[in-house]
Amino acid sequence: MRHFLIIAHKALTTGDFSLNDMPGSAGRMDILCRCINTSLFLSHDMRRDVQVHLVLLGDPDPGKIVRFDGETLRYLSPDERSSGSLIKKALQKTAGDMEVRSTPGVFIRRGGLDTLLSEFKKHGVNLIYLREDGDDIRTTDEPLDNVVFILGDHVGVTDEEEELITAAGAKLLSVGPLSLHSDHCITVLHNEIDRRTYT
Amino acid sequence: MRHFLIIAHKALTTGDFSLNDMPGSAGRMDILCRCINTSLFLSHDMRRDVQVHLVLLGDPDPGKIVRFDGETLRYLSPDERSSGSLIKKALQKTAGDMEVRSTPGVFIRRGGLDTLLSEFKKHGVNLIYLREDGDDIRTTDEPLDNVVFILGDHVGVTDEEEELITAAGAKLLSVGPLSLHSDHCITVLHNEIDRRTYT
Repeated sequence: MRHFLIIAHKALTTGDFSLNDMPGSAGRMDILCRCINTSLFLSHDMRRDVQVHLVLLGDPDPGKIVRFDGETLRYLSPDERSSGSLIKKALQKTAGDMEVRSTPGVFIRRGGLDTLLSEFKKHGVNLIYLREDGDDIRTTDEPLDNVVFILGDHVGVTDEEEELITAAGAKLLSVGPLSLHSDHCITVLHNEIDRRTYT
Repeated sequence: MRHFLIIAHKALTTGDFSLNDMPGSAGRMDILCRCINTSLFLSHDMRRDVQVHLVLLGDPDPGKIVRFDGETLRYLSPDERSSGSLIKKALQKTAGDMEVRSTPGVFIRRGGLDTLLSEFKKHGVNLIYLREDGDDIRTTDEPLDNVVFILGDHVGVTDEEEELITAAGAKLLSVGPLSLHSDHCITVLHNEIDRRTYT
């Protein structure tokens, strides 16, 4: 299983946002939409062995986790409005500590980065934190078949979050010589794992 | 210079489309928007050495080329609506054989795949056609520093177009073992060239 965890510091935590203004009033929700696209789509197919975990930390009710599960996911098209619409529907549900399903393959609950890190650790999932000064993904010996990749948004990852991530034992990896958007990093990560898996 | 040429068989050739329905009535305009994003964006920066050439073949006036020039481009944000809006403005201009500028770094004219292929050949740009059975991008000896990558849309590339492309001398390359969306291919191509250029 490949997991992607994206920390969204400004993303609204209410379903009361406009699909016409996701970069603005929705708190850069467009970034999450593109991460969902690159995590889950193949040409004329979907990556069923992928889960995406969005940690939403924006107003008015920070600390919600929206999960997209490739295996059971339905109603997702590649465009930003489609994933935005599924996030919006999830945020319209009342979120508690137990996950609830909003649409097939999309779930919401309360929680934050610490919640997910401790769950992944407990289940033996290899934690990888993407940073420019990490080891090269192409040459790393890290196992990449049961893994969660942790990425930030347009403001990156805060010092406090980075402390949590490294304390949880995450390894640092890099995707290449230039600093890329999170959704582009995801595409490069998939390509490397695809090559290790299918060739 | 890195060029990306995307053939869009259904993309509308009038500016009279809604940014709220780019996958539908605009003829999968969303695909082009994502290709523009992955071609041109770095984290907090833009790739100034990139040009994107969109060949629009949809109704009502097929055969228009919209060019995005990274060096002079302005007003582009990463979200689909932003690139969609710039394409829309370009399509609102009257297109003739000579290119006209619609907004800084965005241009439109009449033309098709054959127009671009003969211009690239004339200027000594190396033609690369992306196809699953091509040589691996990671190990190819093809020069990748003055190059145009030719990609299709959701319906691929027609037999007639493929004949034109191969007759123009294009080499076949592949980005990996799985079939990917065009915008994802572009990210993988950039990563390979970045690695050859900057490490």
